[in-house]
Amino acid sequence: MSATTGTEPEAVTGWDILSAADRIAGYVRHTPLLSSPFLDEIAGRRVLVKPECLQHTGSFKYRGARSALSAMPSADRRRGVIAYSSGNHAQGVARAAQEYGVPAIIIMPSDAPALKIANTRALGAEVVLYDRGREDRDALGAALAEERGVSLVKPFDDPRVIAGQGSAGLEIAADARALGIEDAEVLVCCGGGGLTSGIALALEDQMPGFRVRPVEPEGFDDARLSLEAGRITGHGGPEKGLCDAILTPAPGRLTFPILSRLCGPGLAVSDEEALRAMALAFQRLKLVAEPGGAVALAAALFHGKEIEADTVIVTISGGNVDAGTFARALDTL
Amino acid sequence: MSATTGTEPEAVTGWDILSAADRIAGYVRHTPLLSSPFLDEIAGRRVLVKPECLQHTGSFKYRGARSALSAMPSADRRRGVIAYSSGNHAQGVARAAQEYGVPAIIIMPSDAPALKIANTRALGAEVVLYDRGREDRDALGAALAEERGVSLVKPFDDPRVIAGQGSAGLEIAADARALGIEDAEVLVCCGGGGLTSGIALALEDQMPGFRVRPVEPEGFDDARLSLEAGRITGHGGPEKGLCDAILTPAPGRLTFPILSRLCGPGLAVSDEEALRAMALAFQRLKLVAEPGGAVALAAALFHGKEIEADTVIVTISGGNVDAGTFARALDTL
Repeated sequence: MSATTGTEPEAVTGWDILSAADRIAGYVRHTPLLSSPFLDEIAGRRVLVKPECLQHTGSFKYRGARSALSAMPSADRRRGVIAYSSGNHAQGVARAAQEYGVPAIIIMPSDAPALKIANTRALGAEVVLYDRGREDRDALGAALAEERGVSLVKPFDDPRVIAGQGSAGLEIAADARALGIEDAEVLVCCGGGGLTSGIALALEDQMPGFRVRPVEPEGFDDARLSLEAGRITGHGGPEKGLCDAILTPAPGRLTFPILSRLCGPGLAVSDEEALRAMALAFQRLKLVAEPGGAVALAAALFHGKEIEADTVIVTISGGNVDAGTFARALDTL
Repeated sequence: MSATTGTEPEAVTGWDILSAADRIAGYVRHTPLLSSPFLDEIAGRRVLVKPECLQHTGSFKYRGARSALSAMPSADRRRGVIAYSSGNHAQGVARAAQEYGVPAIIIMPSDAPALKIANTRALGAEVVLYDRGREDRDALGAALAEERGVSLVKPFDDPRVIAGQGSAGLEIAADARALGIEDAEVLVCCGGGGLTSGIALALEDQMPGFRVRPVEPEGFDDARLSLEAGRITGHGGPEKGLCDAILTPAPGRLTFPILSRLCGPGLAVSDEEALRAMALAFQRLKLVAEPGGAVALAAALFHGKEIEADTVIVTISGGNVDAGTFARALDTL
């Protein structure tokens, strides 16, 4: 990756995003901007929704995974890749590896949902299960990487991954420009900050009138706290919660400087608001959102007083949700 | 509308579809072709899904409504439009009229779901309720049309409506061509045949290697029976059923000759299969399909022995389903 300064050798630039978008073009889906007059009415402003739940593997994570694999020297890629994930990143990496015909090892907790394990295997990956309580995932991964000579693809703190997620920002810029929109707040579902920072970098170049704001679940709002404190700060909350896809303890070493320079302030929504947003995405957009993928829409719909722009663009970052949780969301209608 | 022969003054041609597509461009959403390796595996062939549930108002009906209003002489359009519908056509006409700033009267049964009545009103239409048991809808509509000088927009047997629905076929042709597909069976959810015949006309010109086939619910398969008999034949079944959006007694006077010339044989799926297809659209595509909108996907997934092509393209024609019915579909997972 190119460097912005001598002291930040791994910084990501707008150029890296254009380069990643070019590498993954024709593989990644260009997701549209959707809308509903009913959502506009609830929000009190224009709401445009970018449905990354319609991306391959059901979340934006495939963008970063495909970007990372496409940026590897082919000799490295041929030996294969490894990732830790019980969810969306696992499926993104598995699919990208399958497309390249290279091995993928995904380290998953043995108590991960059976369907997610089955899906990851069905995408051609070798799933290595570990016992969350007794085994050290990082040590297991390092040993496997050493033994097999495979390359680790981190979920967000990797410049190639951030650049890939940024391709979503280029699409937002192009589609918003076609609609004549020059000022907007862009609310992004935020875990480790890969998607948020990538979109922010893309829009910095393409849409200087846009402001990017991370959205998190209440109690897991480490990005918001870190932006307020001006340094990486953990949320100090529990490990588990409804919005499983975006529950990271703290922003990344690479993502935080980008968030800090370009994004904020952060927003946080309750689990109940996330469930109601899922129900409204069902009813008004005909989309399946997972809880963590619905927090940005929830902020647009239910936290309007914290938003200034006349137009708000929100990501639905993923739709990998089980039927039981979805039924719970529908019960809020 | 242009005529193909002297004896069929209202026949619709491929040129009418191009003209309609031109009039509605920029208003109608170009919906993509989506796919999932998991669906391909179930079907035993490549499955491409055209999600018209993502169209404005949640179904393809907006295409035909916008097309009809855009083709009216402006003096007629200014006086307003009238439609009978408790469902998707109502919302399509209401939205198109709202965009033109002209009055819309929608005649709905008083026992229609409260949400659908509320939605149609929220789109600016005047909803006139009638008692299904005691009042004659057609007489009521004719009296209102006479009194107010408004124009009737029929749900399918109108050349302007058929041409508008055909715009979905032009999109299928363009997107399939970009994927290098030249042979495919195109399965279309079929009520009165407006969408099926429109798509067939569009593909006749654009994709001569494609075969269009109507899909209906078992017991409501009047298009299939009519194609077999070579003349318009009713299904003779009940009026109501799970797949409410596509339960018409018989193909239309305008749509049937097109179906007969270009389409078939028809397919029919069970309600259980439609529900399972809804559940798989939820799980694998992150889309909300209504029962009638899921029958073509159901045929692709569960009636593979009746299909020959290596690639099947299916419409999901709408997603306007209540939470209770959707939960019933999820129970099949």
